Amino acid sequence: MIGIGVIGYGYWGPNLVRNFSDATGSRVVAVSDLARERLDRVSGRYPDVLTTTEASDLIDNPAVDAVAIATPVSTHFDLGMRALEAGKHVWVEKPLAATSDEAQRLRDEAAARGLVLMVDHTFVYTGAVRKIADLVQTGQLGALYYYDSVRVNLGLFQYDVDVMWDLAVHDLSIMDYVLDARPRAVSAIGSAHVPGRTANLAYLTCLFDDSLIAHFHVNWLAPVKVRRTLIGGDRQMIVYDDLEPSEKVRVYDKGITVDPGPEGRYEMLVSYRTGDMWAPQLETTEALTVAARDFIGSIETGGTPVTNSAVGLRVVRILEAATRSMNNRGELVDLDLAKVGA
Amino acid sequence: MIGIGVIGYGYWGPNLVRNFSDATGSRVVAVSDLARERLDRVSGRYPDVLTTTEASDLIDNPAVDAVAIATPVSTHFDLGMRALEAGKHVWVEKPLAATSDEAQRLRDEAAARGLVLMVDHTFVYTGAVRKIADLVQTGQLGALYYYDSVRVNLGLFQYDVDVMWDLAVHDLSIMDYVLDARPRAVSAIGSAHVPGRTANLAYLTCLFDDSLIAHFHVNWLAPVKVRRTLIGGDRQMIVYDDLEPSEKVRVYDKGITVDPGPEGRYEMLVSYRTGDMWAPQLETTEALTVAARDFIGSIETGGTPVTNSAVGLRVVRILEAATRSMNNRGELVDLDLAKVGA
Amino acid sequence: MIGIGVIGYGYWGPNLVRNFSDATGSRVVAVSDLARERLDRVSGRYPDVLTTTEASDLIDNPAVDAVAIATPVSTHFDLGMRALEAGKHVWVEKPLAATSDEAQRLRDEAAARGLVLMVDHTFVYTGAVRKIADLVQTGQLGALYYYDSVRVNLGLFQYDVDVMWDLAVHDLSIMDYVLDARPRAVSAIGSAHVPGRTANLAYLTCLFDDSLIAHFHVNWLAPVKVRRTLIGGDRQMIVYDDLEPSEKVRVYDKGITVDPGPEGRYEMLVSYRTGDMWAPQLETTEALTVAARDFIGSIETGGTPVTNSAVGLRVVRILEAATRSMNNRGELVDLDLAKVGA
Amino acid sequence: MIGIGVIGYGYWGPNLVRNFSDATGSRVVAVSDLARERLDRVSGRYPDVLTTTEASDLIDNPAVDAVAIATPVSTHFDLGMRALEAGKHVWVEKPLAATSDEAQRLRDEAAARGLVLMVDHTFVYTGAVRKIADLVQTGQLGALYYYDSVRVNLGLFQYDVDVMWDLAVHDLSIMDYVLDARPRAVSAIGSAHVPGRTANLAYLTCLFDDSLIAHFHVNWLAPVKVRRTLIGGDRQMIVYDDLEPSEKVRVYDKGITVDPGPEGRYEMLVSYRTGDMWAPQLETTEALTVAARDFIGSIETGGTPVTNSAVGLRVVRILEAATRSMNNRGELVDLDLAKVGA
Repeated sequence: MIGIGVIGYGYWGPNLVRNFSDATGSRVVAVSDLARERLDRVSGRYPDVLTTTEASDLIDNPAVDAVAIATPVSTHFDLGMRALEAGKHVWVEKPLAATSDEAQRLRDEAAARGLVLMVDHTFVYTGAVRKIADLVQTGQLGALYYYDSVRVNLGLFQYDVDVMWDLAVHDLSIMDYVLDARPRAVSAIGSAHVPGRTANLAYLTCLFDDSLIAHFHVNWLAPVKVRRTLIGGDRQMIVYDDLEPSEKVRVYDKGITVDPGPEGRYEMLVSYRTGDMWAPQLETTEALTVAARDFIGSIETGGTPVTNSAVGLRVVRILEAATRSMNNRGELVDLDLAKVGA
Repeated sequence: MIGIGVIGYGYWGPNLVRNFSDATGSRVVAVSDLARERLDRVSGRYPDVLTTTEASDLIDNPAVDAVAIATPVSTHFDLGMRALEAGKHVWVEKPLAATSDEAQRLRDEAAARGLVLMVDHTFVYTGAVRKIADLVQTGQLGALYYYDSVRVNLGLFQYDVDVMWDLAVHDLSIMDYVLDARPRAVSAIGSAHVPGRTANLAYLTCLFDDSLIAHFHVNWLAPVKVRRTLIGGDRQMIVYDDLEPSEKVRVYDKGITVDPGPEGRYEMLVSYRTGDMWAPQLETTEALTVAARDFIGSIETGGTPVTNSAVGLRVVRILEAATRSMNNRGELVDLDLAKVGA
Repeated sequence: MIGIGVIGYGYWGPNLVRNFSDATGSRVVAVSDLARERLDRVSGRYPDVLTTTEASDLIDNPAVDAVAIATPVSTHFDLGMRALEAGKHVWVEKPLAATSDEAQRLRDEAAARGLVLMVDHTFVYTGAVRKIADLVQTGQLGALYYYDSVRVNLGLFQYDVDVMWDLAVHDLSIMDYVLDARPRAVSAIGSAHVPGRTANLAYLTCLFDDSLIAHFHVNWLAPVKVRRTLIGGDRQMIVYDDLEPSEKVRVYDKGITVDPGPEGRYEMLVSYRTGDMWAPQLETTEALTVAARDFIGSIETGGTPVTNSAVGLRVVRILEAATRSMNNRGELVDLDLAKVGA
Repeated sequence: MIGIGVIGYGYWGPNLVRNFSDATGSRVVAVSDLARERLDRVSGRYPDVLTTTEASDLIDNPAVDAVAIATPVSTHFDLGMRALEAGKHVWVEKPLAATSDEAQRLRDEAAARGLVLMVDHTFVYTGAVRKIADLVQTGQLGALYYYDSVRVNLGLFQYDVDVMWDLAVHDLSIMDYVLDARPRAVSAIGSAHVPGRTANLAYLTCLFDDSLIAHFHVNWLAPVKVRRTLIGGDRQMIVYDDLEPSEKVRVYDKGITVDPGPEGRYEMLVSYRTGDMWAPQLETTEALTVAARDFIGSIETGGTPVTNSAVGLRVVRILEAATRSMNNRGELVDLDLAKVGA
């Protein structure tokens, strides 16, 4: 039975406590938060869980085997490093850290100590994303043309990060899981409409070795909620609409057929194919439950979780490069993600 | 009664012939096309209309007062110039010409001769776009944050132009009509997935003097058809969905309120407003009918149509700059549209 | 080449003229209508077609082999009978006639003379309905539970028929084509909201030998347009949404599994199955084109069209019984459709 | 502080415990359920709440001022009567009782003792339904034409009640709240597709004194979830779609205008009006929270809750009559709801 300590009981922390309480193989030992009234809520619901306003109490508690960090991004590195140095396995909310340097150091520390370090890219554990990855990786879509994602709504302005670090991080982690290829360069343009605040609207484009292109539209100021991804391949295409109550993933047997023109000329003839649409049944287990199992299982077996620190580092690198690009009005920034191990 | 000659009877020409035949104040005198079987179709439906495979026959016909050009973009300049030189008013399908230099020369020639030169930006004449322009220009949306457009489907690959010149031209002309501000710089990234063919997928971003940002996603290879524009202002926001059968324009009384934090600190506090949604009834006259009336009326009164050559020139300049940007992997290209007169 | 005469050039007549003009094997010889200005429109578009305000001129014209009747329902019998007596094949708009007696007499006359008598149940010739019939009849849905149809919008109030004879006739003809079983009894309740006018809103229920139930909601006074049919079977279920631009037919691998409870008790245990959804590609040929071919082909080969007079008679019988039921506030009225031959 | 005892901790009980725990003015004293493991769940979450497998322990507990009954319908009468006889206020899940006789006796007992008796028609307390009632009752829709409701999905088969008593009860309670008029007669047709089980599909029609008609379609075996009500008036019309995430209520300024024909003839001329659509912002407080406040407030002030026993009795009478109608294959059954007091 792995003892879990949860740092931060704000928006997401309660979900972590609930899932690690219910999961086979783990129990929640302690929760820390700076706000007393939040800790009172913990005690009301979970009388046996220790509460403290001091994260270090929790980290140092010998009954805590693993620490789950659900605090603002700027604190991820410091808390994560203290936990690793205390010999604890670490689960960190997305993004892994505020800089790639911090992410790399966390990763190195965990590796040196043989501890599990996992970033909570929750969407990767949904039935929808796992089905999409399966379809892409078994070649059902054929060679990929594009990956286009929109994630907008009237969302909470974050204080410490901009809309890319808040929302695009989800889509970059999904893309990292679904695609085998890694982006080679990134460009981002955005806008901050509130004086003194970070960008609340951004367009991020990733280029790859071939003609594949990925694009992400994130916006905290949209009148309607949209969470839709189009993935185009030369055999089939996917529409992933996360707001659909049931058929979130639709596979279209549509596309083009390209033939050389008469006399083998340079110009290619393009004709259209349309066929059936198919919405596969999806696994409906709550994503966070699957993620928690992956974390616990990795600790138990000494394995590596799906959303491990290499994944977390790659995503932070892309966000970091996108921030640099946005500061230079969309200038293309090269990426070298190959160095990051699996 | 203004005599109209239509050059080109392919996809769009039949609509021109039908509208100029039905419109009060005009009649169709002649149609030219390179393909005999298309002209036979004209004769079958309109026995009194002259047909010819020679555009010059039509241009030189003294019964033709105005020439409507519905041919590939590369021929717009040559045919338009010949018609103007023959003293004919000219209607050209979008885009006005293949280069801004050509567009400028057509514009100068028409001005010098006192002839009407109009580009067929049909969407500008829809009830939806006219209502949106009214809402924006009477200040109902407040200061604008963004203009975000998506126009994708499994569309015909064009031979002579890329997807921006084929699809984004619609949205740029709508934006030009709706907004008072003109973009100062443009960036575009795209991809050509068929060897030897132009880009079939592109993302185009326009920057303005202030924090307003405009973005256009166009794609010939999408599995679903989307034609949706979001326009965000600090008072209200619009969703314009051209595929909705009735409520194409929805106005949301939603947004944020920004207040200085306590002690007048730098950081601004953001709170949310949500209110009613409202879908105004729209004028349903066919857009092309309204456009034809504008053309005929401008000829009759010596006036200037809404989608005049200055508009056409601005749109071509943006497309030209976008093409340059795309060739340089998204490098921002400055625009100076102020020079173009009204 | 079969010569067609079309009686009535109002809402639907122009579609008939266009389709019989374009179809291989037929040409339109003459059109009659009471209104001169409508006939002028015919002459404008089809200079070679004879026009007349006298239906009898058309019926008696020896160049007319078949008569298509697109006039108000009350005239179907008289015009149809005159055409049959003149030895002409007959195509009648839906419904076949105003009473089952009239329908039967038309059917008998056609049979006695060996002439083709077809009712234009256009929806039966759509790709969507043909695919649904195929799925139902090959057993993919299993045993049928229900057939539920909604066809409402802000539609034209008809002068001579109520909303059942105007709209439910479509759905009854679709059901007749899709199902093997025939209803045994019908109940209808409706309401007339305009003084002196027929019912503009109706609910019609058909009962069958087994537990299958069919229900039809038709309404001329709905604020939104809905054309949706649910068909539930014990293996799969269909949603047919005629307003969907592409995936009109969706097949759901959903349902229940029924098992005897423990100890073989009377009470059955019900558990749920959910699986994939699938939207088959549909044939997109215009339905009226396929119908016209069926009519022409039946004349050429001496065959029987799919929407023959037996079908038309069955549908009129159901409507007639429904009217009787509605006049008795929903009293169940028995049907005996078995007598009607194939 | 009113002490609440909750009987039944199955599907809905946990919501009652949570709401009465959080509400100002009430606290949950005790919970009873026949299943021990459910009571353990109560104790885990609410350590201070007494648990018991004996409902009578709870009813007799002097700290319990009011009893909330969330058990199968067949037990409502017996438990409710015992609670009233013990001098407790009573909250009962819908429907109030299994027969109108039981409902009447509960109502009489509560009145005799001056106790509050409330039925939990939760939907009546939603922002959507309250807004609709406001629009209808202030005359914005004008005279009503129809009320049409669809509530279908792949839902749980209930053991003790059929689909009308399970689902239509919601819509009948909404209608009762929204309309001033009361139905005069009811007809219902349905089907039971599982041997030995109640009807899982039903169509219920209510007739009124005038031409208003109300219709309810309920189904446990539909492949898609639909919860949509159309309300047509002679001035405006409403579409209430409970599955819409935000704009659940849409008001259409659409309809017909009826004028006498020329020469004051019998036949009325019908013309169409179309105007704006408007989706008012809705109150978003959880309906059950508002309902709990109504119950508590009524106890505190000696008032009458909105969903009081007269409402509950009327709904049970309609369901009872509908059941009789269904057993007679849709025979119209008269209702006399006027006797039921406010």
